[in-house]
Amino acid sequence: MAIFITFEGVEGCGKSTQAELLKGHLEAVGRKVVAVREPGATPVGEKIRSILVGSEGEGMSPLTELFLYEVCRAELVHKVIKPALEAGVDVICDRFTDSTLAYQGWGRGLDVGVIKRLNSIATSGLVPFVTFFLDCPPEVGLGRAFKRMRQGTPEDRFEKEALSFHSSVRKGFMELAAQEPDRVRIIDANRDISLIHGEICDIIKRCVSRKS
Amino acid sequence: MAIFITFEGVEGCGKSTQAELLKGHLEAVGRKVVAVREPGATPVGEKIRSILVGSEGEGMSPLTELFLYEVCRAELVHKVIKPALEAGVDVICDRFTDSTLAYQGWGRGLDVGVIKRLNSIATSGLVPFVTFFLDCPPEVGLGRAFKRMRQGTPEDRFEKEALSFHSSVRKGFMELAAQEPDRVRIIDANRDISLIHGEICDIIKRCVSRKS
Repeated sequence: MAIFITFEGVEGCGKSTQAELLKGHLEAVGRKVVAVREPGATPVGEKIRSILVGSEGEGMSPLTELFLYEVCRAELVHKVIKPALEAGVDVICDRFTDSTLAYQGWGRGLDVGVIKRLNSIATSGLVPFVTFFLDCPPEVGLGRAFKRMRQGTPEDRFEKEALSFHSSVRKGFMELAAQEPDRVRIIDANRDISLIHGEICDIIKRCVSRKS
Repeated sequence: MAIFITFEGVEGCGKSTQAELLKGHLEAVGRKVVAVREPGATPVGEKIRSILVGSEGEGMSPLTELFLYEVCRAELVHKVIKPALEAGVDVICDRFTDSTLAYQGWGRGLDVGVIKRLNSIATSGLVPFVTFFLDCPPEVGLGRAFKRMRQGTPEDRFEKEALSFHSSVRKGFMELAAQEPDRVRIIDANRDISLIHGEICDIIKRCVSRKS
């Protein structure tokens, strides 16, 4: 049976690297896998992503920003994720509903109940099978993100936010993990890449054997 | 005190013409007025509008379409409509929450309760003071819209929909008017432009004197 896995965490926590490594691992053991990132991954989503991460998005209302994330999510779930899962293909998603709760709720101060309602509508109730929250202190993650930036990867709007914003976001992820410990696994991301990958593979193995 | 007026109806019902005439009338009696159209009217909204009415939007999920309208609405309400009303300026809006209910709910078959919840979140509860539903048989409205198209105005996605879709949309507007008769006024739009304008001005006059 196909599984739906999401990766969450603050900027520079190593999500995208780990998502890619996990995809390789699952394919190596004979599973079919689609890896996507949010926002984006669909033609409509990519258009919205360019508004969200670009300078055009500066000054928009926090509620507008929230709805833009939900647009991408609705399209991604109904056009990519659900069809893949129904066809027996695993899906790995780089950011999903928990990011919106952590960034827009704990970070921007929007009502968490409102965000949960919008998440539920946009996903038609789809919940990840397992979510990896890659935890590292924001100053470590931001340090990595800024290093990438100096190497030519453009800085996005969230990377410009103050450290206190990113600390609130991290607190949000922690609370979400506390609310749903079976689904959201906290991974210490302040370690060697291969160690983290090994732990993630172990968790997936246990979850899959328990499910099947 | 500033008032918020919306115009609703099927394609080609004459909304935009009447919105413009009403703006002129209100200005002539000394009121300050801002007229906007939905979706659009803000930089983010115009970007979204181009996705909604263009060929890029073809094939997107109905839920994505719904969220795109709510993005425009959230930005328009918080960046234009509320600030204008707070500054004592009347606002006339060409399409608003009722269009989403009629088109996405009655037309596309999305859950009306879900749309009402999204409308309420996007507007932070702002409700028009008065809404004019310009009613004409869809075949009359579509005839006008197609005539515009032959004269060089590009046809949009909704104008390509079958007549039965537009009949469902009209039924939706009728039901919404029945649910809130004090707010939603049904105007027979199958008449001379100046007659319709006169009726609208009379209603506004009565509403304003009742409110002040």
